Amino acid sequence: MTDTKVLLDYGSGGRASHRLVGELFLTHFANPELCRLNDAARLELTGPLAVSTDSYTVDPIFFPGGDIGSLAVHGTVNDVAMLGAVPRYLTCGFIIEEGLEMAVLERVVASMGRAAREANVSIVTGDTKVVPRGTVDKLFINTTGIGEIISDPTPSGDRAAPGDAVLLSGSMGDHGLTILSTREGLNFEAPVKSDSAALAGLVVKLLREVPGVHVLRDPTRGGLATTLNEIAESSAAGILLEETLVPVTDAVRAGCSFLGLDPYYLANEGKFICILPEDNAERALAIMRADPLGAGACRVGTVVADHPRQVVLKTVLGGKRLLTMLEGEQLPRIC
Amino acid sequence: MTDTKVLLDYGSGGRASHRLVGELFLTHFANPELCRLNDAARLELTGPLAVSTDSYTVDPIFFPGGDIGSLAVHGTVNDVAMLGAVPRYLTCGFIIEEGLEMAVLERVVASMGRAAREANVSIVTGDTKVVPRGTVDKLFINTTGIGEIISDPTPSGDRAAPGDAVLLSGSMGDHGLTILSTREGLNFEAPVKSDSAALAGLVVKLLREVPGVHVLRDPTRGGLATTLNEIAESSAAGILLEETLVPVTDAVRAGCSFLGLDPYYLANEGKFICILPEDNAERALAIMRADPLGAGACRVGTVVADHPRQVVLKTVLGGKRLLTMLEGEQLPRIC
Repeated sequence: MTDTKVLLDYGSGGRASHRLVGELFLTHFANPELCRLNDAARLELTGPLAVSTDSYTVDPIFFPGGDIGSLAVHGTVNDVAMLGAVPRYLTCGFIIEEGLEMAVLERVVASMGRAAREANVSIVTGDTKVVPRGTVDKLFINTTGIGEIISDPTPSGDRAAPGDAVLLSGSMGDHGLTILSTREGLNFEAPVKSDSAALAGLVVKLLREVPGVHVLRDPTRGGLATTLNEIAESSAAGILLEETLVPVTDAVRAGCSFLGLDPYYLANEGKFICILPEDNAERALAIMRADPLGAGACRVGTVVADHPRQVVLKTVLGGKRLLTMLEGEQLPRIC
Repeated sequence: MTDTKVLLDYGSGGRASHRLVGELFLTHFANPELCRLNDAARLELTGPLAVSTDSYTVDPIFFPGGDIGSLAVHGTVNDVAMLGAVPRYLTCGFIIEEGLEMAVLERVVASMGRAAREANVSIVTGDTKVVPRGTVDKLFINTTGIGEIISDPTPSGDRAAPGDAVLLSGSMGDHGLTILSTREGLNFEAPVKSDSAALAGLVVKLLREVPGVHVLRDPTRGGLATTLNEIAESSAAGILLEETLVPVTDAVRAGCSFLGLDPYYLANEGKFICILPEDNAERALAIMRADPLGAGACRVGTVVADHPRQVVLKTVLGGKRLLTMLEGEQLPRIC
C-alpha cells in the first residue's frame, strides 16, 4: 500500500476499499473463493456444521506469543473444534481506526493469513470498516468459523456425567498474565508468553481415536474456574478439582502471586478441557501428550454426583473450598 | 436487567456475562440451539452454502426506518440472498462501550430479534465484549449469515453478459441520505427514511420463478455507481445506465441537491440490482412489483459489449458520461 496510514477512504466501499482488499487482504488470505469478491462466499460443505463467532479487542494488539490477528484465528478455530468439528472456513470483519499505521495493519493481516494456513482454514469472505479517529481504539477483528462435525453425538457442555474424568491439555493462565503484564509494562524475572494456538489438529485426532468424549471446552475469558462452573451448571453435576494436579508454570505462579491474581480465572487461548468416561482417560492423555500442544496434559479432577452445579477445589492442604464463577471483571480486553 | 448501564463486568465471561446473555439475548433471540450456550452452535445444513459477514458501525444507532440492530440483520441477510441462497442462520458479535445505557442496548437487541424473526433466520450463537469507555463509540455489531444456495449456477458479479437487462428493485439513496441528515440534525421539508429491509423473501421468489438470473447485488456502501462498476469490472463487460430510468424519490433528490450529494453514490439497505437475459426481464419485473419491497422496480439499463469494464450514464439531456467508482469517502459510518 502506498499510504502510510489507514484513511477513512479505505472503508468507503469505493476505489480505495478495493485497493486495500486487492493489495492487502487478497495477498495474505489468497484463495479462489475470496478472489471472486462477491459479498458472500459459496462453500461446499457437508453437514452437520459447527459455527462460532468472536470479536477480538485485545490490548495491546501485539504481545509475546501472538497478536490480534493470530488470536482471531486461534480463538475461533478452537471454539469450532470444541463442538467436535473440523474447522474449514473463516469470515473476518475488520473495524479500523482512521490513522492506524498501515504497517501495523499489514503485520496483523500477514499474521492472520499465516495462522489460517497453519490451522488449515480458508478466510473466504470479509468486511472492512474504517471509523473516524477516536471512535474505536486501533483495531478490532471479528471472525466467524464454520466446521464439519465429525463426532456424533457432539461433545457439549451439558454432557458431563458423574464418574467422568476431567482432563486438561496444559498449564493455566499464560495468555491472561501475558496480556496484563505486556499492557502494564511489567517485567517479570521469568518471561511469560501467550499460549495462543490452534487446537483443532489435536482435538480432531483425539475425537477420531477415543470414543465417547462428553465435553470439550477451551477455558478462555473467565478461565478454568468459570468454564468448569458453566459445565457443572449445564450438566447439573458436581466437579471436584484437585489443586495439586492443575498445571501452572512457575513463571505464571510467580506473576500471579506478585499481582494478586488467581490463575484459575485467567484466560487461556491454547488449552482445552476434555471430560470423558474414566475408562478412556489414559488413552486420551496419551494422545494429547504425543502432540506438542498437549505435552503438559494431565488429569485434574472428576465429575461427581455430590454438590451438583458446583465446582469444589480440593486444596493443596487437603481442605475443600467452593470455586465460583468469575465475579466482576478481572481484566478487560484480554482477547 | 437491574443495572441501568452496561458495566465492564458484562463482558468478563463470568457471572455478569451470563446474566446479560440469559436475561437479554436469550429473551429476544430465543431458539433451542442458542439456549444450549455452547461456544459454537450445531447447524443441520448441507452445502452448497452462502456465507457473508459485516460489521455495523452506523452513527447514529437509531434513525428513521431502523436502528443498528435491524440493520445488522437486514444487511447480512441481504448479502447472503444475493448469492442465490435462502438465509437460515445468523451469528452476532456485540462490542459495547462501558457505560452504554442498558435501555439503549435492550432496544437494539429487541429490534434485532424482531428483524431476525421477520427475516426467518435464527441467531444461533454470539459473543459480547464490553470495552472501557472511549475505546469504542457506543455499540458496534458484527453479524455473519449462513444460507442454503438454491440456484445453480449461483448469481455472481462476474456473470453479466452483453444483452442482459439491468433491473433495479426501487429508488436509490434513501438510507444514505437518512443517516447523514439524522446525524447532522438536518430537517428537510419532505422527511426521508431508510429503506433498510430484508430482501430474501423477494429474492427467493424471483430465483424460483425466473431462470437464468446472472447477477444479484445490493448497492450498499458506494451506492449504485460503485456496485455497477464492480460488476462491469468482474464481468469484463460494459454497462449502459439511463439516468431518466433510475428511480430517486423527490425527497432524496431535493436533499441531495441541497447537500451536493449524488444519489448514485449513496448507500441503500433494502434494494437490489438484478441482471438477467433480456427475455426474462418483464417476468422478473412483474414478480418484483408484486412485492411491497419491489414496488418501485424498473429496468434502468443494459449490459453492452462496448466500453468493457466501464459504466456509462446516458444523461437526461441525452449526453453520455462515465460513471466511475466512488472516490474518497462520501460518508463514514453509514452502515
